[in-house]
Amino acid sequence: MSGNLPIRVNGNRLQGTLEDLARIGATAGGGVTRLALSDEDRAARDHLADLMREAGLTVRTDDFGNMTGRRAGTADLPPVQLASHLDTVRSGGRFDGALGVVAALEVVRALDDARIETRRPIEVVNWTNEEGVRFEPAMMGSGAATGRFAREWVDARTDRDGLTFGAEIERIGYRGTARDRPAIAASYLELHIEQGPTLDDADLAVGVVEGIVGITWLDIVVDGRADHAGPSPMGTRRDALVAAATLISKVQRIALATGAPAVGTVGRVAVEPNSINTIPGKVTLSADFRHPTADGLDQMVAELEETAALIRSEGEIGVSLDRFWTSEPTPFDAGVVSAVAKAVSGLDLPVRRLWSGAGHDAKYAADVSPAGMIFVRSRGGISHNEQEWSDPADVEAGANVLLLATRRLADEGG
Amino acid sequence: MSGNLPIRVNGNRLQGTLEDLARIGATAGGGVTRLALSDEDRAARDHLADLMREAGLTVRTDDFGNMTGRRAGTADLPPVQLASHLDTVRSGGRFDGALGVVAALEVVRALDDARIETRRPIEVVNWTNEEGVRFEPAMMGSGAATGRFAREWVDARTDRDGLTFGAEIERIGYRGTARDRPAIAASYLELHIEQGPTLDDADLAVGVVEGIVGITWLDIVVDGRADHAGPSPMGTRRDALVAAATLISKVQRIALATGAPAVGTVGRVAVEPNSINTIPGKVTLSADFRHPTADGLDQMVAELEETAALIRSEGEIGVSLDRFWTSEPTPFDAGVVSAVAKAVSGLDLPVRRLWSGAGHDAKYAADVSPAGMIFVRSRGGISHNEQEWSDPADVEAGANVLLLATRRLADEGG
Repeated sequence: MSGNLPIRVNGNRLQGTLEDLARIGATAGGGVTRLALSDEDRAARDHLADLMREAGLTVRTDDFGNMTGRRAGTADLPPVQLASHLDTVRSGGRFDGALGVVAALEVVRALDDARIETRRPIEVVNWTNEEGVRFEPAMMGSGAATGRFAREWVDARTDRDGLTFGAEIERIGYRGTARDRPAIAASYLELHIEQGPTLDDADLAVGVVEGIVGITWLDIVVDGRADHAGPSPMGTRRDALVAAATLISKVQRIALATGAPAVGTVGRVAVEPNSINTIPGKVTLSADFRHPTADGLDQMVAELEETAALIRSEGEIGVSLDRFWTSEPTPFDAGVVSAVAKAVSGLDLPVRRLWSGAGHDAKYAADVSPAGMIFVRSRGGISHNEQEWSDPADVEAGANVLLLATRRLADEGG
Repeated sequence: MSGNLPIRVNGNRLQGTLEDLARIGATAGGGVTRLALSDEDRAARDHLADLMREAGLTVRTDDFGNMTGRRAGTADLPPVQLASHLDTVRSGGRFDGALGVVAALEVVRALDDARIETRRPIEVVNWTNEEGVRFEPAMMGSGAATGRFAREWVDARTDRDGLTFGAEIERIGYRGTARDRPAIAASYLELHIEQGPTLDDADLAVGVVEGIVGITWLDIVVDGRADHAGPSPMGTRRDALVAAATLISKVQRIALATGAPAVGTVGRVAVEPNSINTIPGKVTLSADFRHPTADGLDQMVAELEETAALIRSEGEIGVSLDRFWTSEPTPFDAGVVSAVAKAVSGLDLPVRRLWSGAGHDAKYAADVSPAGMIFVRSRGGISHNEQEWSDPADVEAGANVLLLATRRLADEGG
């Protein structure tokens, strides 16, 4: 029972499992629509439960529908958890979420093939409703199981037809019990497609994720004065859109000056009255800042506030910034990140560390377990789209990283 | 019958007539709603016809409902025409349009009071549907009577209830004949409120209008690439909104650099997909440029095109400019402008020349007659609003300018 045998996943089996799963909720355009707690989600869950049992795992389901397949260890220690999600967005891809679950299953199969036992148990987890498309918010199952969301609140979430999370999980038959939640783990590992272009641009199959950036969202209101575009000389205008344009440019400049992985985006703009020959009197816009540290986030907001103050002082224009939501940064556990990096090195692949710019279940899992993630290259960085694609070779490389890191972590400590 | 007697309008009578008219279509907020060819427009027309006849004018109505009251001259020469409009926007003010008609009537009354005859006839004109709110486009009556719009096309214009201009003008009983159109005039004069802040900022009662600026409208489409705001590094983005912000700022800078009376406005913006955490993939926006010369307009558009070319060359972002509508500049007749300036001087008022940034019936009248305009101060520059206001002293000053200019022009030439 050594951790040093050069075992590898079975790439063909992994692809086959992935393709089988992609048929459940398949779209005409080559993607997948498998919304949380839908009939398609139920079918995918049933299929996964069969695969888990075939792989010798003991399957349990918790009160939020999170599914766990457990492989015993040689010691009764906290497990190494390999997790992701089977739900998708509407007309999404076949890799987002599913790849992480299938790769976890393949790790177990590969260990079985090599007749390798691990000291710690291994849990394969399918989190419920990561996408948050049908029931908001995102990462609901992992957040609920780790204590971020209360059971009553989760059950009362409604979709656009007024159906509740609670009723739908009963309907599809995946309401388990609180004592069957995924364990608090010794190490949590999540393999996921990058959903961004960094690895593709660098021509790398896999990346070592250092953490999930903090995100803060602002609502910005610019108050000027609506006037006829003709008889209003430039000097006397209070043009809310010109001020908003300054803020839009500034959000970009703040992010560029802060440097990667920080980003800043204005995604939403509403102009009033929005008429071709009327000077805009009011503009509301959003800002989205992301940074690996809370101080960094604060600094980005502070710089935008400086520009807002300048606009206020220069003309009779009001600018208000409402920082209405923040998701704190989640740096991953140094030991787990190191295990992933060593696994990459062990495959003779270059170690590229990067931050995740988007949320993942690993964020909430990190509340209770030392966590880390592996990114697999997304072709062109495209995701949440039927065109989402990761090459089989990259998928196999990622699963091998997961396998090697799992072996290292599952034989550690105790 | 000399032009040199120091006669003046009767300010109280002028105010009384203005207030009587403001009761027709009065709104609770102190403004007026008197849409073209509505029952309120009919009532105002009936009232005007009565006032014209009381003032000894011969009243006629043309095929577009344009009303003309004629005071004979001592010679059978082309008349001096004093014109404006009685229709308003929804919840508009009591001055926009009405003041010009009432002031014209007061000029005739003042001449009668002083028993002054003029060499040329004087025509008081009420143009139909200047505002273009109920039936588009604006300045319909003046445009039709001067040959810009064909009779069949005008009759087929519909309001939002599907009623046609042709049917409505019949319904209110104001369909006259083509031979009763306002004459091609020796001089055309239109008194109007400024609807902008220039005179108020300079503390001047009246202004001499040099012409109506040219206007050009552009539809601009910026094509980038929509991406998730999280995993997309700043360097690889194709953010359509950041490019649009550059264009919005540039429109302002072009206008500022060109100098008054040039203006530039982006009034309309649409962002796709307009989601807080998605990089905008497409932005459509408008641009409105105004300049006293066609070359100046072309130059403003060319400068924006330069910025568009720069954006295209810097990143993989498409920018297309569609200059879909232009209203050519209308410099007024030097002789008419001079007569107005002399009238202002004759009242010991400072002569301030300015351009109209908005369209007026004088634009189309200028197609067939030497034309000019007088602006009366708008308090705060506010118009198309119930708060629209011009002080009685300013109204009286404006009417006196109209009177003096009319005397000068009506005794000239031949």
